[in-house]
Amino acid sequence: MNNITVVDILGYIAACFSTFAMLPQAIHIYKTNEVEQLSLRTFTMATIGAILWLVYGLLINNMVVILANAIGILIVGYIFTKKFIHHRKQHDSTF
Amino acid sequence: MNNITVVDILGYIAACFSTFAMLPQAIHIYKTNEVEQLSLRTFTMATIGAILWLVYGLLINNMVVILANAIGILIVGYIFTKKFIHHRKQHDSTF
Repeated sequence: MNNITVVDILGYIAACFSTFAMLPQAIHIYKTNEVEQLSLRTFTMATIGAILWLVYGLLINNMVVILANAIGILIVGYIFTKKFIHHRKQHDSTF
Repeated sequence: MNNITVVDILGYIAACFSTFAMLPQAIHIYKTNEVEQLSLRTFTMATIGAILWLVYGLLINNMVVILANAIGILIVGYIFTKKFIHHRKQHDSTF
Protein backbone atom coordinates (compact mmCIF):
# COMPACT_ATOMS: atom_id res chain seq x y z
CA MET A 1 0.00 0.00 0.00
CA ASN A 2 2.98 2.31 0.58
CA ASN A 3 3.83 2.13 -3.08
CA ILE A 4 0.63 3.75 -4.37
CA THR A 5 1.49 6.93 -6.26
CA VAL A 6 -0.58 9.84 -7.60
CA VAL A 7 -0.29 8.21 -11.02
CA ASP A 8 -1.80 4.97 -9.64
CA ILE A 9 -4.67 6.92 -8.12
CA LEU A 10 -5.30 8.61 -11.49
CA GLY A 11 -5.46 5.13 -13.04
CA TYR A 12 -8.00 4.00 -10.43
CA ILE A 13 -10.16 7.09 -11.04
CA ALA A 14 -9.99 6.49 -14.80
CA ALA A 15 -10.98 2.84 -14.20
CA CYS A 16 -13.98 3.97 -12.10
CA PHE A 17 -15.21 6.30 -14.85
CA SER A 18 -14.84 3.62 -17.53
CA THR A 19 -16.44 0.92 -15.38
CA PHE A 20 -19.45 2.91 -14.25
CA ALA A 21 -19.97 4.98 -17.43
CA MET A 22 -22.52 2.49 -18.79
CA LEU A 23 -24.52 2.37 -15.54
CA PRO A 24 -26.80 5.38 -16.32
CA GLN A 25 -27.53 3.80 -19.74
CA ALA A 26 -28.40 0.48 -18.04
CA ILE A 27 -30.66 2.28 -15.54
CA HIS A 28 -32.38 4.13 -18.38
CA ILE A 29 -33.03 0.81 -20.14
CA TYR A 30 -34.27 -0.77 -16.91
CA LYS A 31 -36.78 2.07 -16.46
CA THR A 32 -37.94 2.52 -20.05
CA ASN A 33 -37.01 -0.63 -22.01
CA GLU A 34 -35.78 1.69 -24.77
CA VAL A 35 -33.06 -0.07 -26.74
CA GLU A 36 -34.07 0.56 -30.37
CA GLN A 37 -31.38 3.20 -30.97
CA LEU A 38 -28.59 1.27 -29.27
CA SER A 39 -26.08 -0.54 -31.45
CA LEU A 40 -26.11 -4.33 -31.03
CA ARG A 41 -22.56 -4.51 -32.41
CA THR A 42 -21.38 -1.94 -29.86
CA PHE A 43 -22.70 -3.84 -26.86
CA THR A 44 -21.59 -7.20 -28.26
CA MET A 45 -18.05 -5.84 -28.62
CA ALA A 46 -18.16 -4.10 -25.22
CA THR A 47 -19.24 -7.35 -23.53
CA ILE A 48 -16.55 -9.42 -25.28
CA GLY A 49 -14.02 -6.70 -24.40
CA ALA A 50 -14.93 -6.79 -20.71
CA ILE A 51 -14.70 -10.62 -20.66
CA LEU A 52 -11.25 -10.51 -22.30
CA TRP A 53 -10.10 -7.81 -19.84
CA LEU A 54 -11.32 -9.97 -16.94
CA VAL A 55 -9.36 -12.97 -18.22
CA TYR A 56 -6.33 -10.70 -18.73
CA GLY A 57 -6.72 -9.36 -15.18
CA LEU A 58 -6.86 -12.90 -13.78
CA LEU A 59 -3.76 -13.92 -15.76
CA ILE A 60 -1.69 -10.92 -14.61
CA ASN A 61 -3.34 -11.13 -11.16
CA ASN A 62 -4.29 -7.44 -11.10
CA MET A 63 -7.16 -6.84 -8.68
CA VAL A 64 -8.17 -3.46 -10.18
CA VAL A 65 -8.52 -4.94 -13.68
CA ILE A 66 -10.40 -7.98 -12.29
CA LEU A 67 -12.83 -5.94 -10.18
CA ALA A 68 -13.47 -3.21 -12.79
CA ASN A 69 -14.28 -5.75 -15.48
CA ALA A 70 -16.32 -8.09 -13.29
CA ILE A 71 -18.60 -5.10 -12.58
CA GLY A 72 -18.32 -3.98 -16.22
CA ILE A 73 -19.49 -7.38 -17.49
CA LEU A 74 -22.65 -7.14 -15.35
CA ILE A 75 -23.48 -3.65 -16.67
CA VAL A 76 -22.69 -4.05 -20.38
CA GLY A 77 -23.90 -7.67 -20.30
CA TYR A 78 -27.29 -6.44 -19.06
CA ILE A 79 -27.52 -3.85 -21.86
CA PHE A 80 -26.39 -6.44 -24.45
CA THR A 81 -28.97 -8.98 -23.22
CA LYS A 82 -31.83 -6.45 -23.34
CA LYS A 83 -30.80 -5.30 -26.82
CA PHE A 84 -30.29 -8.86 -28.09
CA ILE A 85 -33.73 -9.99 -26.88
CA HIS A 86 -35.35 -6.92 -28.44
CA HIS A 87 -33.43 -7.40 -31.67
CA ARG A 88 -34.60 -11.00 -32.02
CA LYS A 89 -38.20 -10.25 -31.11
CA GLN A 90 -38.74 -7.07 -33.07
CA HIS A 91 -36.33 -7.45 -35.96
CA ASP A 92 -35.03 -4.01 -35.11
CA SER A 93 -32.51 -2.81 -37.62
CA THR A 94 -29.85 -1.14 -35.45
CA PHE A 95 -26.76 -3.29 -35.63
CA MET B 1 9.54 -6.89 -29.02
CA ASN B 2 10.93 -10.25 -27.95
CA ASN B 3 9.24 -9.92 -24.59
CA ILE B 4 5.66 -9.93 -25.88
CA THR B 5 3.78 -12.88 -24.38
CA VAL B 6 0.43 -14.53 -25.12
CA VAL B 7 -0.93 -12.63 -22.09
CA ASP B 8 0.21 -9.30 -23.61
CA ILE B 9 -1.50 -10.20 -26.89
CA LEU B 10 -4.72 -10.98 -24.99
CA GLY B 11 -4.47 -7.52 -23.41
CA TYR B 12 -4.03 -5.90 -26.84
CA ILE B 13 -7.06 -7.77 -28.22
CA ALA B 14 -9.11 -6.71 -25.17
CA ALA B 15 -7.97 -3.10 -25.72
CA CYS B 16 -9.06 -3.27 -29.38
CA PHE B 17 -12.54 -4.51 -28.45
CA SER B 18 -12.97 -1.81 -25.79
CA THR B 19 -11.60 0.95 -28.02
CA PHE B 20 -13.65 0.15 -31.09
CA ALA B 21 -16.84 -1.04 -29.32
CA MET B 22 -18.43 2.42 -29.55
CA LEU B 23 -17.63 2.81 -33.26
CA PRO B 24 -20.83 1.08 -34.55
CA GLN B 25 -22.88 3.31 -32.21
CA ALA B 26 -21.09 6.41 -33.54
CA ILE B 27 -21.68 5.28 -37.16
CA HIS B 28 -25.36 4.69 -36.38
CA ILE B 29 -25.63 8.24 -34.97
CA TYR B 30 -23.77 9.67 -37.98
CA LYS B 31 -26.26 7.98 -40.34
CA THR B 32 -29.50 8.56 -38.42
CA ASN B 33 -28.90 11.36 -35.89
CA GLU B 34 -30.74 9.18 -33.37
CA VAL B 35 -29.50 10.03 -29.87
CA GLU B 36 -32.73 10.38 -27.87
CA GLN B 37 -32.34 7.03 -26.09
CA LEU B 38 -28.65 7.45 -25.30
CA SER B 39 -27.68 8.43 -21.79
CA LEU B 40 -25.96 11.83 -21.55
CA ARG B 41 -24.40 10.82 -18.23
CA THR B 42 -22.99 7.64 -19.80
CA PHE B 43 -21.23 9.45 -22.61
CA THR B 44 -20.06 12.27 -20.35
CA MET B 45 -18.46 9.70 -18.03
CA ALA B 46 -17.05 7.67 -20.92
CA THR B 47 -15.43 10.79 -22.41
CA ILE B 48 -13.95 11.88 -19.05
CA GLY B 49 -12.78 8.27 -18.51
CA ALA B 50 -11.00 8.17 -21.87
CA ILE B 51 -9.31 11.55 -21.20
CA LEU B 52 -8.11 10.35 -17.77
CA TRP B 53 -6.83 7.08 -19.30
CA LEU B 54 -4.95 9.08 -21.95
CA VAL B 55 -3.29 11.24 -19.27
CA TYR B 56 -2.49 8.07 -17.29
CA GLY B 57 -1.02 6.46 -20.42
CA LEU B 58 1.16 9.53 -21.05
CA LEU B 59 2.36 9.54 -17.42
CA ILE B 60 3.31 5.84 -17.43
CA ASN B 61 4.49 6.17 -21.05
CA ASN B 62 2.45 3.16 -22.25
CA MET B 63 1.85 3.38 -26.01
CA VAL B 64 -1.09 0.92 -26.03
CA VAL B 65 -2.98 2.92 -23.37
CA ILE B 66 -2.15 6.21 -25.16
CA LEU B 67 -3.23 5.00 -28.61
CA ALA B 68 -6.38 3.16 -27.46
CA ASN B 69 -7.63 6.18 -25.57
CA ALA B 70 -6.68 8.78 -28.16
CA ILE B 71 -8.91 6.85 -30.60
CA GLY B 72 -11.49 6.27 -27.84
CA ILE B 73 -11.76 10.02 -27.12
CA LEU B 74 -12.56 10.69 -30.79
CA ILE B 75 -15.33 8.05 -30.84
CA VAL B 76 -17.02 8.65 -27.46
CA GLY B 77 -16.36 12.40 -27.75
CA TYR B 78 -18.29 12.42 -31.05
CA ILE B 79 -21.24 10.57 -29.45
CA PHE B 80 -21.12 12.87 -26.41
CA THR B 81 -21.08 15.99 -28.60
CA LYS B 82 -24.04 14.83 -30.70
CA LYS B 83 -26.02 13.90 -27.59
CA PHE B 84 -25.10 17.13 -25.79
CA ILE B 85 -26.19 19.32 -28.73
CA HIS B 86 -29.44 17.37 -29.02
CA HIS B 87 -30.03 17.55 -25.29
CA ARG B 88 -29.64 21.34 -25.23
CA LYS B 89 -31.76 21.89 -28.33
CA GLN B 90 -34.58 19.49 -27.67
CA HIS B 91 -34.69 19.35 -23.90
CA ASP B 92 -34.61 15.58 -24.23
CA SER B 93 -35.01 13.89 -20.89
CA THR B 94 -32.52 11.00 -21.09
CA PHE B 95 -29.74 11.78 -18.65
